[in-house]
Amino acid sequence: MSSDNDAVDHRVRADDGAVHSVWDNGLEPVCTVEPGDVVRFECNDATNGQVGPDATAADLATLDIDPVHPLTGPVAIEGAQPGDVLQIDLLEIDHDGWGCTLVLPGEIELGLLADEFPEPALYVWELEDDVGEFVDGIEVPLDPFPGVIGVAPAEDGAHSTFPPRSVGGNLDVKQLTEGSTLYLPVAVEGALFSIGDGHAAQGDGEVCGTGIEAPMTVTCRFDLRSDLSLETAQFETRGPFTPTGRDEPMYGTTGVADDLMDATRQAIRHMIDHLHDERGLSRTEAYMLCSVAVDLKPNQVVNAPNWTVSAYLPERIFPEPRRRSTTGE
Amino acid sequence: MSSDNDAVDHRVRADDGAVHSVWDNGLEPVCTVEPGDVVRFECNDATNGQVGPDATAADLATLDIDPVHPLTGPVAIEGAQPGDVLQIDLLEIDHDGWGCTLVLPGEIELGLLADEFPEPALYVWELEDDVGEFVDGIEVPLDPFPGVIGVAPAEDGAHSTFPPRSVGGNLDVKQLTEGSTLYLPVAVEGALFSIGDGHAAQGDGEVCGTGIEAPMTVTCRFDLRSDLSLETAQFETRGPFTPTGRDEPMYGTTGVADDLMDATRQAIRHMIDHLHDERGLSRTEAYMLCSVAVDLKPNQVVNAPNWTVSAYLPERIFPEPRRRSTTGE
Repeated sequence: MSSDNDAVDHRVRADDGAVHSVWDNGLEPVCTVEPGDVVRFECNDATNGQVGPDATAADLATLDIDPVHPLTGPVAIEGAQPGDVLQIDLLEIDHDGWGCTLVLPGEIELGLLADEFPEPALYVWELEDDVGEFVDGIEVPLDPFPGVIGVAPAEDGAHSTFPPRSVGGNLDVKQLTEGSTLYLPVAVEGALFSIGDGHAAQGDGEVCGTGIEAPMTVTCRFDLRSDLSLETAQFETRGPFTPTGRDEPMYGTTGVADDLMDATRQAIRHMIDHLHDERGLSRTEAYMLCSVAVDLKPNQVVNAPNWTVSAYLPERIFPEPRRRSTTGE
Repeated sequence: MSSDNDAVDHRVRADDGAVHSVWDNGLEPVCTVEPGDVVRFECNDATNGQVGPDATAADLATLDIDPVHPLTGPVAIEGAQPGDVLQIDLLEIDHDGWGCTLVLPGEIELGLLADEFPEPALYVWELEDDVGEFVDGIEVPLDPFPGVIGVAPAEDGAHSTFPPRSVGGNLDVKQLTEGSTLYLPVAVEGALFSIGDGHAAQGDGEVCGTGIEAPMTVTCRFDLRSDLSLETAQFETRGPFTPTGRDEPMYGTTGVADDLMDATRQAIRHMIDHLHDERGLSRTEAYMLCSVAVDLKPNQVVNAPNWTVSAYLPERIFPEPRRRSTTGE
């Protein structure tokens, strides 16, 4: 989308060195902004440029995990105090025309089924404005958002960017799209806001460990809300809740188990089987597609001792009906 | 919706005694149907009529849990063998104009936050065709579905209807609405299909332990699919994925924890706080509203050691904006 450059008060660019790969409340802010200011963040992809548009799976062997995730910031917000709430209006979010999906099971054991997918894998996406083309003519709808968005933690020292925390971070809430508003609890003076890990698309769950990882530009407006008090992030969103933004045909698989993570693994295993058997994808392609386009739901968390988790695949992303229609038609 | 009575091959009515409250492959089928047959099931509410349209919370003290859930059936499907898949097309689903939401923390410790809501509570709903009125003018959209739908398990003997299993049962998949198709693995000769626990509405999660529990009529067409093989239920659905069937404003709360159930509890606790503080509901009303109208999502299950779970509240169910808008407007 086009942007109104005049409205941007500050620009913060990873390429100018405004990038860090740990959360640390001792980091010097790259700039200080006023409540009400609009800031444009230019963010590198999650690998910090180690994987580019021409990369192959062989390049993953030498991938250095230390720069992951490169975050743009930190930006101090004038007057922010512990106990305040930082309001972030996500005004505009744009990807840069390419992205990558990685399976990285090795050292960091990334992914819901890391044991079952021991080989590293890579898919490089060419991205149109609102669609990314996968194998076999599969078209994945795009609605970009920052996977990591947060403020510095109260605890001193360096903290990994992998886990999210009460102050935000690697939340991976795919509904934090353009037009959404995020509220974060401020833990340190100045808040020290950072952002990165752009995802052009992701399923609820992000099961292979990555979405469509993409360099991204995010324009935010900041405000301080001393009238609010929060323990963890809250937000306002208009979705997406389906790829087209309206109810549409989905194929569902279920997992039933006495542990929510086990039920989740079952549902995704069954969806991978479905994508392999009925759509002809390799199992690795299916795992990746689940991570970028399949949404998980906990259907019930109360029917002890067994919980239900389902995975939802939008049928519209495929150019053709299933090989063997389960409808018998 | 109106139905074509001529197309119904069999009627199975709880009121005629075709009701049972355990899964048991030794139960005598109430009838045997052919693949392709259309069967109309008339189902009692989950309390089997112990709670009626005029009930009060005081009636919960004497509630007998043994008849829960009353299931209509079992119906044998001619020719069904273990290893087959039973296809169930959900042709028509209608509630009966009323329903109830219960908080039952006592003996059975029902509910995600059973410890925090120790008092039994009841809300009786008057249901229009597609909306149920809650307190303060809140209107909950309806899209009825059977909470329990399944076939008899392979293991002999009586099995509780509370937990779902690989053969289905208390799945509580709120997208098994009219027009959906469910596939279940057959475990015993004749399959022995039963259905019940009608929900006029439910959030993904069903956090207080009940949806809008409602007597319901469900018309199904059965087919056998020997070309398929399943470990657990799979399904085709068109939703609902939002109350209106299209993207719309939602308020989101998050939970961040190293256990998915703990993260889920956090997200719901924060939503209850929000509904209490910003919408003026009592905490028990808020818990009930979460159970019938708030959807849970696991945003990511891969950023070890912490997972993100969010709860999504549709803003449109309220007659007015929030008391203290978080948008500051």
